[in-house]
Amino acid sequence: MKISNLAKSIAPSSTLAITAKAKALKESGIDVVGFGAGEPDFDTPLHISKAAKIAIDEGFTKYTPASGTISLKEAVAKKFELENGVHYAPSQIVVSNGAKHSLINAFMAILDSGDEVILPAPFWLSYPEMIKMANGIAKTVQTKKENNFKLTPQELEEAITEKTCAIVLNSPSNPTGVVYSRDELKALADVAVKHDLWIVSDEIYEYLVYDDAEHTCIASLSEEIYNHTITINGLSKGFAMTGWRIGFLAAPQQVASAAANIQSHATSNPNSIAQRAADAALIGGREFVDEMLVEFAKRRDYLYNALVSIDGFDVIKPHGAFYCFVDISDLYGKTFEGIEIDSAATLAALLLDKANVAVVPCADFAAPNCIRLSYAIDLDSIKKGVEYIQKFVSSLK
Amino acid sequence: MKISNLAKSIAPSSTLAITAKAKALKESGIDVVGFGAGEPDFDTPLHISKAAKIAIDEGFTKYTPASGTISLKEAVAKKFELENGVHYAPSQIVVSNGAKHSLINAFMAILDSGDEVILPAPFWLSYPEMIKMANGIAKTVQTKKENNFKLTPQELEEAITEKTCAIVLNSPSNPTGVVYSRDELKALADVAVKHDLWIVSDEIYEYLVYDDAEHTCIASLSEEIYNHTITINGLSKGFAMTGWRIGFLAAPQQVASAAANIQSHATSNPNSIAQRAADAALIGGREFVDEMLVEFAKRRDYLYNALVSIDGFDVIKPHGAFYCFVDISDLYGKTFEGIEIDSAATLAALLLDKANVAVVPCADFAAPNCIRLSYAIDLDSIKKGVEYIQKFVSSLK
Repeated sequence: MKISNLAKSIAPSSTLAITAKAKALKESGIDVVGFGAGEPDFDTPLHISKAAKIAIDEGFTKYTPASGTISLKEAVAKKFELENGVHYAPSQIVVSNGAKHSLINAFMAILDSGDEVILPAPFWLSYPEMIKMANGIAKTVQTKKENNFKLTPQELEEAITEKTCAIVLNSPSNPTGVVYSRDELKALADVAVKHDLWIVSDEIYEYLVYDDAEHTCIASLSEEIYNHTITINGLSKGFAMTGWRIGFLAAPQQVASAAANIQSHATSNPNSIAQRAADAALIGGREFVDEMLVEFAKRRDYLYNALVSIDGFDVIKPHGAFYCFVDISDLYGKTFEGIEIDSAATLAALLLDKANVAVVPCADFAAPNCIRLSYAIDLDSIKKGVEYIQKFVSSLK
Repeated sequence: MKISNLAKSIAPSSTLAITAKAKALKESGIDVVGFGAGEPDFDTPLHISKAAKIAIDEGFTKYTPASGTISLKEAVAKKFELENGVHYAPSQIVVSNGAKHSLINAFMAILDSGDEVILPAPFWLSYPEMIKMANGIAKTVQTKKENNFKLTPQELEEAITEKTCAIVLNSPSNPTGVVYSRDELKALADVAVKHDLWIVSDEIYEYLVYDDAEHTCIASLSEEIYNHTITINGLSKGFAMTGWRIGFLAAPQQVASAAANIQSHATSNPNSIAQRAADAALIGGREFVDEMLVEFAKRRDYLYNALVSIDGFDVIKPHGAFYCFVDISDLYGKTFEGIEIDSAATLAALLLDKANVAVVPCADFAAPNCIRLSYAIDLDSIKKGVEYIQKFVSSLK
């Protein structure tokens, strides 16, 4: 029986494969340290869980408007107003089953068959697959390590063709942890506006910034940029609400209406109870976020410093998200028990098999020389994991 | 700024428009009876809500596998085994954000650009939009009133072209309330198998059958049919869990794997808490379903008999779901205060404006002469609404 070419072209996530293998090892009794986590290891704050339980008790378990409750859209609009200095009417907001879902809605709302989307690499591995699902073509632009893996306006200019419809920006970035400055974003956005491109701005790691880094909501930069921007965000990373699946997009009305229509036929509303939980999260304070951030900053410092001290590891200093991104190509040619390190994938496989450490090899992030280590795990595990890695790397011939 | 042709081609749901208008009237203090409901007016059973609250307390609020927890997939597999006599391994099941989501996953997994999907009309209005989103072409086949709006094998044969990839079957049916017999389904499925077509079988109203009608799970009919069938189902209608958004598909492994891959990039897992609630629903007994069914049957009898007695209403006797489907074309040419009835849309607009009754006109269901009345509202409201309709229709000149 026939399956679609789309289905054939979409690979299972390699991240999930390594996570699954690490889990299997753990279940067989092996003490594996997993640096693969893409979610905070904190519990959802109690006031949020409580709001969800009240929703259940009140029987708030029916269909809601397909694009989200008025109440939640108003809370999202208020968040944009207060935190980002940008005005969105509730009708410009579409609440979805997580920020991934918001992204695919955005791509379906703007892309026609063959339209190109500029994707600065390294990128989060689901972007190209989503663009494919919306009939678009991902045009990867390799950013340079010497630029801290940030796209430059000139690189953007050079990548634009007459088929270009949009550019994806993701700051703070998964997998690099890099945070673009306000000026850097403005310069990129200006190029996008000049060429009348959509800017799909994935700001899911908004709250997770360290040191002097500041998050910039691109839509806030100017009215023209606002009119060209689709802002993607959600509750998962900032409020430790990954399993609840609440994301949202905010955009000029025509895109928001299109995304709402698409969603009304494709999935309808996200879970009603989670919407009430999201209400509580957005309306409540940010103390939880601040506390989580202090902890993440501590772990980042430890992990970054430890990784920097490993010979052959070239580490980008992360200022956002919860990942350390390491170029390991200096290890190429070295061997472990006769096996040659020739890619991040080989190193990751050996680390898992021989050193009981799971890291994410980044070929699917368009960075085959790099590995990603999440510090969304407790500090003791980080210490132990780093020790395993150090020992393994120093044993290479 | 550009939006996609897809976005331009997808209309907001007309059902939602009338529901919104009825709601606005109600909020302005007018006592509108709404026959538009697409969801049971029962609360989610307590043992299910309780399981959800336990999940929250246990911190079961993280990512789950993208295609659903093993535990829920096992519960779904067991349901198929015990209730439908059909074997699906857990790996053949993909849990999604409602049955709508399962349907779009299925279409994306099988359709290439230009592939045709046969859609017996009247149909549920989201099918053609979903097929469009997956780059397919919906080929509507008008069924006949004298056949109780059921597709015949001959009609199916005649509609097949070399571009045909799939057929959608939906029994019990929204909007007609019709239930196909086992033999009728077998005859249609045999044609599909002969031409190597996928059968997308939407069985979301499985539990809601009355009199002697029996639900048939198409995949159970033979091994060959099983290999050609994608079964769609979910918790919304049978367990009064519409807002929780848990649906599932079950299919031959290649389609299930494709759908799981697509979902892993497009939305990830459905809400984790709702998955635990769904566990509890499927593992628990069916007493709630039985009780709800007794109540629905009572309402159906009342509504059907009352509608049949209205001059100019040609009512299909529903044996499933919770809808009465009425051909009102005998009223064409009659007038209310000078306005001529020329379509179900005109009648529905007048009923809402002049008689305070909201019914669904079915042009978007490919039945412009018909209206749909849901009996998922309490009996007293049904009685009052029918009275309003009777009075209005008898006042027509």
